[in-house]
Amino acid sequence: MNKLTREDFTRLDQIDPLAEVRDEFTLPQDLIYFDGNSLGPLPKRTINTLETMIQKEWGDGLISSWNKENWINMPRVLGNKIATLIGAKSGEVVVVDSTSVNLFKVLTSALLLSKNRRNILSEAGNFPSDLYILESVNKMLGESYERYLIEESDYEIDKYIDASTAVVMLSHVNYKTGRISDIKRITSVAHEKGALVIWDISHSVGVMPLDLHNCGVDFAVGCTYKHLNGGPGAPGFLYVHNSLIEKVSQPLTGWMGHIQPFEFAADYQPANDIGKYICGTPPIIAYKAIESSLAIFEDVSMKVVRDKSIQLSEMMIRLMQQECATFGFELFSPRNADQRGSQVSFAHNNGFSIMQTLISHGVVGDFREPNILRFGISPLYMRYVDVWDAVICLRQIMQTDEWQSEQFNQRSFVT
Amino acid sequence: MNKLTREDFTRLDQIDPLAEVRDEFTLPQDLIYFDGNSLGPLPKRTINTLETMIQKEWGDGLISSWNKENWINMPRVLGNKIATLIGAKSGEVVVVDSTSVNLFKVLTSALLLSKNRRNILSEAGNFPSDLYILESVNKMLGESYERYLIEESDYEIDKYIDASTAVVMLSHVNYKTGRISDIKRITSVAHEKGALVIWDISHSVGVMPLDLHNCGVDFAVGCTYKHLNGGPGAPGFLYVHNSLIEKVSQPLTGWMGHIQPFEFAADYQPANDIGKYICGTPPIIAYKAIESSLAIFEDVSMKVVRDKSIQLSEMMIRLMQQECATFGFELFSPRNADQRGSQVSFAHNNGFSIMQTLISHGVVGDFREPNILRFGISPLYMRYVDVWDAVICLRQIMQTDEWQSEQFNQRSFVT
Repeated sequence: MNKLTREDFTRLDQIDPLAEVRDEFTLPQDLIYFDGNSLGPLPKRTINTLETMIQKEWGDGLISSWNKENWINMPRVLGNKIATLIGAKSGEVVVVDSTSVNLFKVLTSALLLSKNRRNILSEAGNFPSDLYILESVNKMLGESYERYLIEESDYEIDKYIDASTAVVMLSHVNYKTGRISDIKRITSVAHEKGALVIWDISHSVGVMPLDLHNCGVDFAVGCTYKHLNGGPGAPGFLYVHNSLIEKVSQPLTGWMGHIQPFEFAADYQPANDIGKYICGTPPIIAYKAIESSLAIFEDVSMKVVRDKSIQLSEMMIRLMQQECATFGFELFSPRNADQRGSQVSFAHNNGFSIMQTLISHGVVGDFREPNILRFGISPLYMRYVDVWDAVICLRQIMQTDEWQSEQFNQRSFVT
Repeated sequence: MNKLTREDFTRLDQIDPLAEVRDEFTLPQDLIYFDGNSLGPLPKRTINTLETMIQKEWGDGLISSWNKENWINMPRVLGNKIATLIGAKSGEVVVVDSTSVNLFKVLTSALLLSKNRRNILSEAGNFPSDLYILESVNKMLGESYERYLIEESDYEIDKYIDASTAVVMLSHVNYKTGRISDIKRITSVAHEKGALVIWDISHSVGVMPLDLHNCGVDFAVGCTYKHLNGGPGAPGFLYVHNSLIEKVSQPLTGWMGHIQPFEFAADYQPANDIGKYICGTPPIIAYKAIESSLAIFEDVSMKVVRDKSIQLSEMMIRLMQQECATFGFELFSPRNADQRGSQVSFAHNNGFSIMQTLISHGVVGDFREPNILRFGISPLYMRYVDVWDAVICLRQIMQTDEWQSEQFNQRSFVT
């Protein structure tokens, strides 16, 4: 292969069908942002949307906006918008609470459905919060489930799924490695054995095409503050296959999940739709930011997004080989694009201080214990030339000993 | 007593020590707002706070703001601000999730602490969501608790509390009647019998002095979108007495409640402080609105607020007797100010359409089934003359048959 030059990257930007979408975002000048998988940037339109929401809807409309501005239906309305991105049907998705709270709900739902089956299958490398919730739900249900945490949810997983498996609970894209687990295949294997599946799609929604309903996925949860750009800590969402919605129950039975919240009935009767997963009153300002950011996706094909994600990632991996091969970085994500989500991770023994140094030079990725440099790939606003500039910056850092200075070795709370 | 005139009300406004606080709020002209107990109005300062948060902290700061703007500590920092309003110590309160989700957590905590006791005591007229959560927690814990719902938590309650009582779970101020339950007395009675208490202070925080720690209250939950003016659906808060924090556990064990969230440890180890009640990533935009609205309380004495609340309510009740005695309204709140929170409720068979008509005339209260007109009293921005104008408006409406027209009889989803 020819040696890559900056011109190769600028040429790709010139023919990028998503190039104009970058204008939708406010991105600080001279900053290259590889951390959209932690916190997506601010969409320009969100500034006005929130100003209107705050001053007109809340300030002027006050309590009447629950009806007049349809605040009351936002969990379902935004759920339907997300449904179009993940291959769900209308009525299968609701935006509510946080991803962890939602996992608590759907895992309980799934276990209550699966009656006598007593095994839960997940991955040791799953996002820790998901595993904490698994333990906690088991505790709430009387410690009656066995948990099996396999190393990797590839073909190996098949032999662990059997007639005792209640639930297979996995992440679509691993938060550290970026490795994809095959939703379609694993869901199908699980269903053959009569098990239910729960997928956490936090790291794939907004950057990969998904086809949850057609794959028969039973439950899913996900996040809106990463690639959906809904704002820091924006509410999560959950999906339930429409064939299950009538049957399922969940334990966080707050009034907003009641079939008639404003009748203030003495007894809880759940909504007869996905709204049964709503609990307390939803934070409307946060919802408006999600609504605004989702509008950007209306004109965007997820296939085109995925194509660009792969090409950005491939170019990064090739350029790292070309420019940084001698510095001890090890590709920690799968080399095969089909098995890799929208991030590229590298292991390096000095990963923490190297990433801190990079950030100080305006290239923002993040670090994950114990030694992982994580670069999120966000096709909506990332340019090919950003990849070039970032890798060259990294090479220059490695050529000096700057990253060894003390200031880059102090661990802060969040990286 | 002399007949009240509008001048009596304007005179009270002239000597009102809180008169200037009204300037802190954006209130639509020609609107009289008696619904701060449903949704508080927009504080002016919140407009700028959110603009800065959105454009500078999120837009420019991106992921770095979790550290640099201290987003990560907001649940605890805002908790400590609320602590000063409710007589809690620093470290006893955290702002997180919704009131219903928080009740799920603390009720579970309390039941896990109380081991062999098998009775839960509450009120039939408690806010329905609280009772729904009670049922649900019982279900999650194997349906092993008896629930006793008494009619009113006055002195009657004493005889129901005994050595089998695990938890007494009540609202401080009843959402329909405005009736106060005596936190100090009931907590003390419960403790004498070895039971734990949980208080829902959603309707009293921000309008009444509270003294939770000194009363020995074990757990409390509350709301920030009513009298704290934190915005529609703003996150709730919870309080745990500091003598219990080390001992308690709760089931929503998300990563943000972990002692070291960013170590991504395989096993959940709860934070050793009130932060153990945090679950998923908190919605920071919503938190900033709360932070801003809480700042208004820094210069305000809760005793002065309570005094004005009582006087506004007394004037309203007297004026209703003077102007509307013949129209069939029945005072539904306690007549004794010591037993009444910051609202005045009236029962009327045509309550729904009368309230709709009032709202169409710019006097905004709300309606609760089956026949309750609810007027929230918000001393921070309410003028005495608002009470006069509202009651005169109501009299004029009752003197015509306007409220009988069809448009005011259509039930909308939220009132």
